[in-house]
Amino acid sequence: EAVPRSAIELRCQCISTHSKFILPKFIQNVNLTPSGPHCKNVEVIATLRNGREVCLEPTAPWVKLIIKAILDK
Amino acid sequence: EAVPRSAIELRCQCISTHSKFILPKFIQNVNLTPSGPHCKNVEVIATLRNGREVCLEPTAPWVKLIIKAILDK
Repeated sequence: EAVPRSAIELRCQCISTHSKFILPKFIQNVNLTPSGPHCKNVEVIATLRNGREVCLEPTAPWVKLIIKAILDK
Repeated sequence: EAVPRSAIELRCQCISTHSKFILPKFIQNVNLTPSGPHCKNVEVIATLRNGREVCLEPTAPWVKLIIKAILDK
């Protein structure tokens, strides 16, 4: 689950990551945040077509594939 | 350049794409939007540490490398 994002992000946004596969057609956009002083984790937050935001595991093969599919389309 | 994003995005957000390489350390986050009824283009918008938003070319090798680097770190 993602916590609400403030204008200035001073901490990690993801408490946990969604482990189940999400069909690409349900994904509206994907936000990638590199690790940094604000958070030691790379964070991948998908906004779904229903408006829900879910945190994805950056190291999961299916997450990498979805990102590659978005870029290659 | 990116145009301001409204809550509901009904059209393409990028008018043009930034062609010059951007050092990963200047990137705060990257947003990937698949093509869809709202826009026929895949859109990659990087928010820089100075707050500026720039549209990147999804097919550019350096853009793919930066995204890969964020995920692999």
